Amino acid sequence: MTHIYLDAMGGDEAPNCTVMGALEALRADKELKITLAGPIDEIEKLLGEAQDVRNRIELDDCPEIITNHDAPVMAVRQKKNSAVVKGMLLLREKKVDAFVSAGSTGATLAGGMFRLGRIEGVERPALAPLLPNGKGFFCLIDCGANVDCLPQYLPQFGVMGAAYVRLMRGIENPRVGLVNIGAEAEKGNALAKAAYPLMESAPFNFVGNIEGRDITADHADVIVSDGFSGNLIMKFMEGVADTLMGMIKKEMYADLRGKIGGLIAKPAFRRVKKQMDYTEVGGAPLLGVKGVVIKAHGSSNAHAIASAIRQAALMARKGLVDAIEKEISKQLQQ
Amino acid sequence: MTHIYLDAMGGDEAPNCTVMGALEALRADKELKITLAGPIDEIEKLLGEAQDVRNRIELDDCPEIITNHDAPVMAVRQKKNSAVVKGMLLLREKKVDAFVSAGSTGATLAGGMFRLGRIEGVERPALAPLLPNGKGFFCLIDCGANVDCLPQYLPQFGVMGAAYVRLMRGIENPRVGLVNIGAEAEKGNALAKAAYPLMESAPFNFVGNIEGRDITADHADVIVSDGFSGNLIMKFMEGVADTLMGMIKKEMYADLRGKIGGLIAKPAFRRVKKQMDYTEVGGAPLLGVKGVVIKAHGSSNAHAIASAIRQAALMARKGLVDAIEKEISKQLQQ
Repeated sequence: MTHIYLDAMGGDEAPNCTVMGALEALRADKELKITLAGPIDEIEKLLGEAQDVRNRIELDDCPEIITNHDAPVMAVRQKKNSAVVKGMLLLREKKVDAFVSAGSTGATLAGGMFRLGRIEGVERPALAPLLPNGKGFFCLIDCGANVDCLPQYLPQFGVMGAAYVRLMRGIENPRVGLVNIGAEAEKGNALAKAAYPLMESAPFNFVGNIEGRDITADHADVIVSDGFSGNLIMKFMEGVADTLMGMIKKEMYADLRGKIGGLIAKPAFRRVKKQMDYTEVGGAPLLGVKGVVIKAHGSSNAHAIASAIRQAALMARKGLVDAIEKEISKQLQQ
Repeated sequence: MTHIYLDAMGGDEAPNCTVMGALEALRADKELKITLAGPIDEIEKLLGEAQDVRNRIELDDCPEIITNHDAPVMAVRQKKNSAVVKGMLLLREKKVDAFVSAGSTGATLAGGMFRLGRIEGVERPALAPLLPNGKGFFCLIDCGANVDCLPQYLPQFGVMGAAYVRLMRGIENPRVGLVNIGAEAEKGNALAKAAYPLMESAPFNFVGNIEGRDITADHADVIVSDGFSGNLIMKFMEGVADTLMGMIKKEMYADLRGKIGGLIAKPAFRRVKKQMDYTEVGGAPLLGVKGVVIKAHGSSNAHAIASAIRQAALMARKGLVDAIEKEISKQLQQ
């Protein structure tokens, strides 16, 4: 039985979507058990139709809620009866196998850092979502856990990202690239320039700099970035895709011919949309902490929550944390 | 007569595309005169069919060529017979009205800084392309001239971008935003946090932070960024659009129904592609130097070169440099 701890109050549509997502996940996977964490009365009301899986649901009363308006580190320190704090402590004690939240990113990071703790040797945990590139997915690490990075953080992001992609996607020798504004080693800002030689001597298959226009061109399986640029890239990808789809829709509806063509080609569009859809991918794991932690998109619907839970369970079963621990210790012995 | 100095050897397809672009521009605008700068023999060979506009073409023999492999500052110092160096000096002496190049960005920046010179009071010139957002265009400033920024550069980018958009696009009170990873003032990396209060007190309509997903959502007419993030955004936009269009094409060709729909909807697609097309927009002006300087895309075709020339002529005629000078001096008096 794999045991997921779910922050039931996290996300724009919580607790409705989180509870519905948990039920979807439980029905799809008989080896799953979920703790729903939140104000117990509110959660219980939503379990009316959960009889078929009720025996694999636990409730953890967490009357304190951390919102996006709370200062994360302070909130994690003070709100001891919040899902984030209680969940991270249970994960540390190995009483649950993974933690999932669509709530405050900052709180999940702070909880991961200060309640769960880092894997030995890891300088900074990092958010590492899989993003679509037309041919499949690439791992972008870091996407916002570390907005100001020192150069030595970046090769560690590469080690963790490579371990993740190897284990979860079966890519034996993942190509690791560095986000930069030019192809040559001497290009970039001070951080990228200092990180480049460290990436070259790191224990992975470094394929060099990846410019903006090549991020989705399948030049690398793992793309390493500071958390500021990575967050921009991740969110901008969503934005550009939306804008472009909107433009296509608008132009198609501009005349009858377009409307007809659009109707006929609708299934093809739907397939593209599905490939670009974050709700299929699940969420971003926080790599480098002593447990499986998934930050799901704030606007996750029930299906996206279910995907994040499925993904968390898979990571726990495959031993992601041990794999990262092993690779980091190898890197340090180098 | 507006006189454009064109780096005829700059760009992936030079000198063919540059010369063809110049001819296209000259034929479309009778008040235009162009100096083609490069090795004179090579250029002359391409003027066989230019009789109709030959009287408005001058040649400037520039046997030295600065490539993308040259270290820009060094190249500008040493290659005195290059188009960049000669053109910038002519622009400074007001013997030409604008400089256009699709060649090395670094050389254009270095030439602009050290041969042409900054407008008084400008800390750092910045690249400021117009990018499509589905509703029109926004100005992204800086896109790569300053990869490591101090906080005080950013409000100046805002002042210059606002002056540019006001003059060239007729937007009286442009909305100016700051690229960041969260909506709140206290979000971001050290640079964004320090820049925020400076943006608030700057003499323009500051609309706050713009997250990645809102960059193309028409929340601002001018989006201010450090040059590293800006360059990533600009190039990533191109990359994501290409990837997405490729995915749509692939899915459409995957079955007969899609193929038929795609054929019927082709004009609608073409309109979207045209809206996203950098060859229509021209190039990125370098704002803050003492003359009109346009850096066109390295992969510009003849039409893109012609657009960049047209844009450069318009900026010169509208008095862009004077407008920026005036706004900067106002900012400094504040």
